[in-house]
Amino acid sequence: MSDVKKVVLAYSGGLDTSVILKWLQDTYNCEVVTFTADLGQGEEVEPARAKAKAMGVKEIYIDDLREEFVRDFVFPMFRANTIYEGEYLLGTSIARPLIAKRLIEIANETGADAISHGATGKGNDQVRFELGAYALKPGVKVIAPWREWDLTSRETLMAYAQKANIPVDFAKAGKKSPYSMDANLLHISYEGGVLEDTWTEHEEDMWRWSVSPEKAPDVPTYIELTYRKGDIVAIDGVEMTPAQVLTKLNAIGGANGIGRLDIVENRYVGMKSRGCYETPGGTIMLKAHRAIESITLDREVAHLKDELMPKYASLIYNGYWWSPERQMLQTMIDASQEHVNGVVRLKLYKGNVIVTGRKSDDSLFDTRISTFEDDAGAYDQADAGGFIKLNALRMRIAANKGRSPL
Amino acid sequence: MSDVKKVVLAYSGGLDTSVILKWLQDTYNCEVVTFTADLGQGEEVEPARAKAKAMGVKEIYIDDLREEFVRDFVFPMFRANTIYEGEYLLGTSIARPLIAKRLIEIANETGADAISHGATGKGNDQVRFELGAYALKPGVKVIAPWREWDLTSRETLMAYAQKANIPVDFAKAGKKSPYSMDANLLHISYEGGVLEDTWTEHEEDMWRWSVSPEKAPDVPTYIELTYRKGDIVAIDGVEMTPAQVLTKLNAIGGANGIGRLDIVENRYVGMKSRGCYETPGGTIMLKAHRAIESITLDREVAHLKDELMPKYASLIYNGYWWSPERQMLQTMIDASQEHVNGVVRLKLYKGNVIVTGRKSDDSLFDTRISTFEDDAGAYDQADAGGFIKLNALRMRIAANKGRSPL
Amino acid sequence: MSDVKKVVLAYSGGLDTSVILKWLQDTYNCEVVTFTADLGQGEEVEPARAKAKAMGVKEIYIDDLREEFVRDFVFPMFRANTIYEGEYLLGTSIARPLIAKRLIEIANETGADAISHGATGKGNDQVRFELGAYALKPGVKVIAPWREWDLTSRETLMAYAQKANIPVDFAKAGKKSPYSMDANLLHISYEGGVLEDTWTEHEEDMWRWSVSPEKAPDVPTYIELTYRKGDIVAIDGVEMTPAQVLTKLNAIGGANGIGRLDIVENRYVGMKSRGCYETPGGTIMLKAHRAIESITLDREVAHLKDELMPKYASLIYNGYWWSPERQMLQTMIDASQEHVNGVVRLKLYKGNVIVTGRKSDDSLFDTRISTFEDDAGAYDQADAGGFIKLNALRMRIAANKGRSPL
Amino acid sequence: MSDVKKVVLAYSGGLDTSVILKWLQDTYNCEVVTFTADLGQGEEVEPARAKAKAMGVKEIYIDDLREEFVRDFVFPMFRANTIYEGEYLLGTSIARPLIAKRLIEIANETGADAISHGATGKGNDQVRFELGAYALKPGVKVIAPWREWDLTSRETLMAYAQKANIPVDFAKAGKKSPYSMDANLLHISYEGGVLEDTWTEHEEDMWRWSVSPEKAPDVPTYIELTYRKGDIVAIDGVEMTPAQVLTKLNAIGGANGIGRLDIVENRYVGMKSRGCYETPGGTIMLKAHRAIESITLDREVAHLKDELMPKYASLIYNGYWWSPERQMLQTMIDASQEHVNGVVRLKLYKGNVIVTGRKSDDSLFDTRISTFEDDAGAYDQADAGGFIKLNALRMRIAANKGRSPL
Repeated sequence: MSDVKKVVLAYSGGLDTSVILKWLQDTYNCEVVTFTADLGQGEEVEPARAKAKAMGVKEIYIDDLREEFVRDFVFPMFRANTIYEGEYLLGTSIARPLIAKRLIEIANETGADAISHGATGKGNDQVRFELGAYALKPGVKVIAPWREWDLTSRETLMAYAQKANIPVDFAKAGKKSPYSMDANLLHISYEGGVLEDTWTEHEEDMWRWSVSPEKAPDVPTYIELTYRKGDIVAIDGVEMTPAQVLTKLNAIGGANGIGRLDIVENRYVGMKSRGCYETPGGTIMLKAHRAIESITLDREVAHLKDELMPKYASLIYNGYWWSPERQMLQTMIDASQEHVNGVVRLKLYKGNVIVTGRKSDDSLFDTRISTFEDDAGAYDQADAGGFIKLNALRMRIAANKGRSPL
Repeated sequence: MSDVKKVVLAYSGGLDTSVILKWLQDTYNCEVVTFTADLGQGEEVEPARAKAKAMGVKEIYIDDLREEFVRDFVFPMFRANTIYEGEYLLGTSIARPLIAKRLIEIANETGADAISHGATGKGNDQVRFELGAYALKPGVKVIAPWREWDLTSRETLMAYAQKANIPVDFAKAGKKSPYSMDANLLHISYEGGVLEDTWTEHEEDMWRWSVSPEKAPDVPTYIELTYRKGDIVAIDGVEMTPAQVLTKLNAIGGANGIGRLDIVENRYVGMKSRGCYETPGGTIMLKAHRAIESITLDREVAHLKDELMPKYASLIYNGYWWSPERQMLQTMIDASQEHVNGVVRLKLYKGNVIVTGRKSDDSLFDTRISTFEDDAGAYDQADAGGFIKLNALRMRIAANKGRSPL
Repeated sequence: MSDVKKVVLAYSGGLDTSVILKWLQDTYNCEVVTFTADLGQGEEVEPARAKAKAMGVKEIYIDDLREEFVRDFVFPMFRANTIYEGEYLLGTSIARPLIAKRLIEIANETGADAISHGATGKGNDQVRFELGAYALKPGVKVIAPWREWDLTSRETLMAYAQKANIPVDFAKAGKKSPYSMDANLLHISYEGGVLEDTWTEHEEDMWRWSVSPEKAPDVPTYIELTYRKGDIVAIDGVEMTPAQVLTKLNAIGGANGIGRLDIVENRYVGMKSRGCYETPGGTIMLKAHRAIESITLDREVAHLKDELMPKYASLIYNGYWWSPERQMLQTMIDASQEHVNGVVRLKLYKGNVIVTGRKSDDSLFDTRISTFEDDAGAYDQADAGGFIKLNALRMRIAANKGRSPL
Repeated sequence: MSDVKKVVLAYSGGLDTSVILKWLQDTYNCEVVTFTADLGQGEEVEPARAKAKAMGVKEIYIDDLREEFVRDFVFPMFRANTIYEGEYLLGTSIARPLIAKRLIEIANETGADAISHGATGKGNDQVRFELGAYALKPGVKVIAPWREWDLTSRETLMAYAQKANIPVDFAKAGKKSPYSMDANLLHISYEGGVLEDTWTEHEEDMWRWSVSPEKAPDVPTYIELTYRKGDIVAIDGVEMTPAQVLTKLNAIGGANGIGRLDIVENRYVGMKSRGCYETPGGTIMLKAHRAIESITLDREVAHLKDELMPKYASLIYNGYWWSPERQMLQTMIDASQEHVNGVVRLKLYKGNVIVTGRKSDDSLFDTRISTFEDDAGAYDQADAGGFIKLNALRMRIAANKGRSPL
């Protein structure tokens, strides 16, 4: 274990990654560089600096990545109307490749030969961190303490912390949430605890980012979202940056009880697990993006996107953001968004996201043709006869050969 | 036009199909057989008998098809979690192949050589009726009056009716809904009128089957749905037939403001059109089916179903229910449902369908493995290292050849 | 029929299109612009000028489109390893969108409001011409004489020609090939005649571009093809233009009995038809392109291309070259070819195309890892254990629940 | 390592698996059951009995699995026209699940708690054996000596053999093929040696099952293959069992220089490797199966099969034969073969497999419709106009909005 000289650690400043920091120093006898990111998780990142310093870290990176996160990861993903297994908006999955990228960039800047993270050996996050790291820096060494060490219980971990003089906030540790949580600007997630029984209802006081539909206002909120090439660029006419858009939608959505989810999902490592998620802004974005596409996208382009979406979602869920196949698919998805411009009007009410209007200079909705009123010859109904006849031909031939399903 | 001897007409008893009945007699000088089906549209079908008799029809078919509709069409479709274009539950689409089947069965029974329907030349329904008819009886002649006649305005139609002594309920005709509607046990749909402007909000008084979320009860309703091989067989422990299940879920869902939808969709004939739909029971079924599958279905089986679903949905939307490719896909979908057994608990509240629990003797959720607690060796975290390494290998080789995305 | 002022006709100079030319003048009383293209069909195009002039045509277009054809249509298609229904290299299909494009360009240049072609109402070519035309100029009028006129037999056509003083080469007309043929730089096709019986063997003297394997040389020919971004840029080290590449490969392939095909295919209009094809150069290109991709393309990129290829092939076969979904797919396919550079060595012998070597500076084939010899630690075999264990996990859980296939 | 009581070893009787046998006895101090299968590899299996006995094995299984192999594995795979990466007929891959199945069946019969095989840690076969084993018996222990032991060079292996008195045929060992080979009734494969340089041509004397095209007869061989539900049941009218069919086709194909392949493929474990394959019978079967499907299969069924084939091929290549998703796909593939009956006539000549005819009582080829001659009204060419118009509608609307590609 002596061959590691310097390791970049994804460091939150919390107890677990503080123990990891110390354990890396002890076990690998190597220098540790800490990296702490503000991805919109809603906690201060600056305090991590003093903690790292106190543990002898010389190179400390603290980055505000919120704009990069939404602009280069969240928005591209939403261009595909991405949902994993019909339900999950991939809030955790989409943040991992950005962290992997920064870990490697910092490793390159500081001359580190290894990276380390605090994800366990049972979850998807280890895969996402490490596939990203290997794709970006093939020779990097990855240290995943949870797969290596013997601090496998809360007690041994706490003991290690005390022995190492790591300042444990016992009050906080004692009141520790019963859930394993992850948060960023797109969502907050909950796993473990009572959720491990799939039949037990989630507890109301678990949720942190949204009020319940019951407690949401009795009057609806209306908003208008402006799209340019598939991305939201303004809310109610006010231009905003990507992170500002998502921050604002989280606030509005959360206040209206929008975006809660309780599912059992299939992990890449082969097991099922239950997760609860709050994704207020993302839930609004998905609905609105489909609405603006519904008037601006060609039918077959939309259908092709829908057919490829599950594959694209699995790639992100499984940690293949930096793979060539994800990049290839993205090329196509981005190309499809050229004309996805316009405005969507939404009504938000107690958990509901209701589309009440969509308009666009690029709209392909042609009232002259689809109208129930007189269309002045824009569409010749007689064409439909031939259309149907030829589409039916192969089935008629088959039925003539005795293959009618009747 | 003299080569048609007998035609089976899909007859609702309303003004339009009454005019068609008369027009067929006049134009083709042929005998007309009427077929009226109860698909759960919520209107009496018996009155159609007297109307048909009054117009000289000798062979009158009035069928209650509700059980067949839900058992053989709706339920098989929901096994695939079918959604068209990310939103639409295919309420109109799924009823058409059953009507096509009965039209052809009746044609065979009565020796008719033609069928006729009241769908226009701009919509999807003509395609669905006729593709089905040709697949089941390849030599049948199809008469689609709206593509043939010159009664293209409301006025000419009414004039024809009066001249033909067709009893027009002028009170009703005058108060006619501004929308083109279709209803069956799965849904009711609205098109036309103010909906032709995609930016105009739908009107509250348009909806017929559901209260608004605003007017729904302030206390949630909990229900438990029991699944057997992918189909619901009991609600709150009470065994029911398929049609009873859907009827009950429509009532519960509608009372809780569930299942309203306002979308712009892409028709098979090539245009975009806006539709509003109420699908209270179907909306509940989709959510619940995904929940029961989430614990009972293998991951890759679920993903394969998700990848094929858009194709399957398009087949149904486009009218290819009776095609060999839809039947082939169904074989696979049905085979996947062998172990989809168990119970789902739902909370229904003001438009929200919230899963609060799912359990099954066939559950693949294995707490011993996924737990955050000690798993007693059920899962070896060290395996994850090799798993990731080999999955990363191709990307590491590529990065070594200079293809790192960084 | 008086509303057409000027029509651009795809004119070969042969009897059929000469009759069409005259028929258009007679029937529509409009001006006709002729367009004759050299697509490498192996016949002189210049003679069409005098014939058109003799019939009073004032605007005559004769274009050599061979380079554009191969560069912008054939090569992009081969980047996807495109095959229709497992066999057909789409020789006819890929030429049609170029002809459609030129027809519309000429219509725009000459102010014509219509186009016309000589394809029948049963085939795919009418669809390909017309879908292209409508996509490029939505208001264009299309005249398809074979779907309109009554010259439906050879006799009536000849009579019309004689009456119109169209110079019929009776000698040639008498000795007319029993096959319906189409040729361009990619292939020559044969349909009809004895081929209409699927059990009858094709006749040896039908083939025109290749010797039979029996008559090919007894010694093999070796060639080396150099690829740059997925396209062949040199043969045996000699740089060539796209059309030169294909011309050369046709010559070499044809001389070695390569590229004959006899299949039954499914037409877009709903029927099956039998076609025989000679595609000497294309057959070589497909094999070679797969070979160069085999060492330069990432596995998952290659697999994704393979999964989408049938869809892409159907789009081209069905005439959707100019559709947005084909263009979207092309974006992705082209992006995948960035590293498809290198050299492929082939042995050609009596109908066989045998890959005997491939090399590339962008090769991902890493002998250090895949070797059966000592790999000096480049690959840790122990990783495979964890890889397999986690990939098997979901199946083990299922088997534990009684789902073992045994 | 003391927890293994009895292990079933896939035993060929050769040097490597003999060393493994001894090593298992030494290392695990456990009883070994040997299993030797005749899969048509062309070597005697009986001699393995005496060798095993000599090493103290009490339970010896020697099975002739040729019929089961072709009937339950090869034929089902060919129903899908399965090819991996456009070239490879999966000869090795398809035998592994059968061996896995027998290993587990024997483990169940003999009360063994482990299985073992001689596949290395770099290849696909370990994955195929082990995924199969885990899916069929989730608690089984798998011993893969090549991933565990230190006999990593030829020398140490030979030394171990000598020390253990394993009778090494030094003459044979000395003349050992430079290639790593695998054979069964479907194919023989070659890897390693000079093939590790992708630019080096394979050597003529490597091939064992086929003559070169150059040495094949100068006169073609004609054969007729009879299909029933997608499987060949007779050759030249003589009914045969599945294994007889494949044996016969191998003989005919090999004699005519058919079925050689030299490719670079992507292994599941992440690396590229070069393989040479001889698959004489399989090459004939693939071509013939497509031919019989071409007249009996519905177009959309055929296309759906083509779109899913790459996925199905990857599943088999990667070792997922016993997975639920492969079984689900098989359900659909088998259902599609109901009408795939008839006869295909082939001409075999110096490496070429040429289809010269196909006929079937279930043929959907309808000459009355597709004929170039008068069709007596079977097809109304005017229908094509409407068909094209509606298929073009969405592109015309888009072009009207300024999206024409021109």
